[in-house]
Amino acid sequence: MRVAVDAMGGDHAPHELVAGAVDAVRKAPEIEVLLVGREDDIRAELAKLGDIPGGVSVVHASEVITMGDKPVEALKARPDSSILKAMQLAGCGDADAVIAAGSTGAAVAAATMTLKRLPGVRRPGIAVPFPASNERGVALLVDAGANPDCRPHHLMQYAVMGANYYESVWGCKNPRVGLVSIGEEEGKGNALTKEAAAKIRETNVNFVGNVEGRGMFGGDCDVAVADGFVGNIILKSAEGVAELLLGQVKAVVGKSDPQTFMDIALKFDYSNFGGAPLLGVNGTVVVCHGRSDRRAIRNAILVCARAVDGHVNEHIVEGLSRKSGGGS
Amino acid sequence: MRVAVDAMGGDHAPHELVAGAVDAVRKAPEIEVLLVGREDDIRAELAKLGDIPGGVSVVHASEVITMGDKPVEALKARPDSSILKAMQLAGCGDADAVIAAGSTGAAVAAATMTLKRLPGVRRPGIAVPFPASNERGVALLVDAGANPDCRPHHLMQYAVMGANYYESVWGCKNPRVGLVSIGEEEGKGNALTKEAAAKIRETNVNFVGNVEGRGMFGGDCDVAVADGFVGNIILKSAEGVAELLLGQVKAVVGKSDPQTFMDIALKFDYSNFGGAPLLGVNGTVVVCHGRSDRRAIRNAILVCARAVDGHVNEHIVEGLSRKSGGGS
Repeated sequence: MRVAVDAMGGDHAPHELVAGAVDAVRKAPEIEVLLVGREDDIRAELAKLGDIPGGVSVVHASEVITMGDKPVEALKARPDSSILKAMQLAGCGDADAVIAAGSTGAAVAAATMTLKRLPGVRRPGIAVPFPASNERGVALLVDAGANPDCRPHHLMQYAVMGANYYESVWGCKNPRVGLVSIGEEEGKGNALTKEAAAKIRETNVNFVGNVEGRGMFGGDCDVAVADGFVGNIILKSAEGVAELLLGQVKAVVGKSDPQTFMDIALKFDYSNFGGAPLLGVNGTVVVCHGRSDRRAIRNAILVCARAVDGHVNEHIVEGLSRKSGGGS
Repeated sequence: MRVAVDAMGGDHAPHELVAGAVDAVRKAPEIEVLLVGREDDIRAELAKLGDIPGGVSVVHASEVITMGDKPVEALKARPDSSILKAMQLAGCGDADAVIAAGSTGAAVAAATMTLKRLPGVRRPGIAVPFPASNERGVALLVDAGANPDCRPHHLMQYAVMGANYYESVWGCKNPRVGLVSIGEEEGKGNALTKEAAAKIRETNVNFVGNVEGRGMFGGDCDVAVADGFVGNIILKSAEGVAELLLGQVKAVVGKSDPQTFMDIALKFDYSNFGGAPLLGVNGTVVVCHGRSDRRAIRNAILVCARAVDGHVNEHIVEGLSRKSGGGS
């Protein structure tokens, strides 16, 4: 299993990316990582980390795409960028998966250009794991922002893709899929969700109907389907609320009892859950938070290896083919 | 100043409604409350509350609309329902404001039927106060669910109405208005927000552009504008995250230090902030959370009196007339 890591992407590149990749190989020696980016910078980071396992290698890429760049333009202007080279390694079969913590837009564009979509998939979607009170303590939200103007058919495909990913990675048979809407009753929602619900009902996913924002976190489903605009806003709002609340907790107990604060904060730390897969491309691409640290990168690599081992993409293609094309 | 309270609406009706109304009059004797609903039930509650101030009176209504009812059908079938009678008191000038903690759908429908819209307003919107790290520690989200399929013109009107309400109730000159979107940069978002941003720019509100979910709670704006589908989901998600997080806090510190837990929980208690005004109807209507307790009802009555005193609706009509009609 070979994982290409864009070592230049993210707020803490390259050091946290390199360190997290080395940690992953130390934990799971069956994984090889290819660190893609400026070779000198990467080797300088490796030199700080003691004995480097044999499974770690470096692939030079001279250019970098930053958060401020316009993704498509930047990819054209910088053909030797680390994110594009990482995707090309996956495209030609030299890597089984790609880890990207830089510009999400650039990762999505590079993946779509290089790997293309899985047969039958209209629009790739980003699936973000989040803490929830369900059996496994984690649920998945698709789409988290790749597709901000969804059509009903896209949401139906996210339901199928998300269910297959959840099943493979968290070993949960027939995960419960909910459609994020307002009101739990059938027929509540907006024009988009009403049409999407009907389409999801025609698939073979375990569809539990509408879920509300509260139920998403409360454990009412394992996979929550939303259009990318709504999904992104949910995640950012959740982050905002958690920061506001943890700030209060810190103010009240942080000084007297720092361990208690850390225990609480850690339960809500996204870096526990691995990264966010870009579902629907013909390859395994996992997007990480820009602020990812060493631990988050390590966990993302370990989780993405489970997706590759679980043959998620084969299951997705099979699931989508049972529900044949057509529709809006 | 007379406030009609639907004493039969909400999970804890009539006792918490009656008690909260009495508390409000005790706190602010210039307010009169009209408790609308089944007279016997209301008088039984009043009898438990000691000396009742002179400003508290009862208006009998024999019927009740419940959460499970379909709003429009139920209003037609039950013309003597407490919510409809409360709105009628406002419609004929016998009350200056209405407090409703029962079915939001029924309150919105009854208000729209009875009071009609303010001149120039296309669609009323619900404005919900929420905790934020801005100067006043509270921001306003419009629309929170009255209008789940918004057009750009509706969002522009929510910006104007929300700004005027915030200014009147929280005494903040030119509050900062943000449009909830994905990405803060101009031009980011979906088709709806891109058009809406252009329209809001033409008004005279203090528009700070896009805000993300994280920035909403982080204090980037005082008034956050969103379509009702997105707005409702943000609020419910925020509730879900806060419950999940407070559950952790409780598990860790709740037993050893219950006061600490209460201090933290109270900061996030919606009942601090008063209810949610239905902006755009020709009257002052404040919707309260179904779970409202005595304290929440009391605060909602006190806050809504500020809106009446501040002549919010006159300011809204003036603000909207400056930005003349047209558009989608």
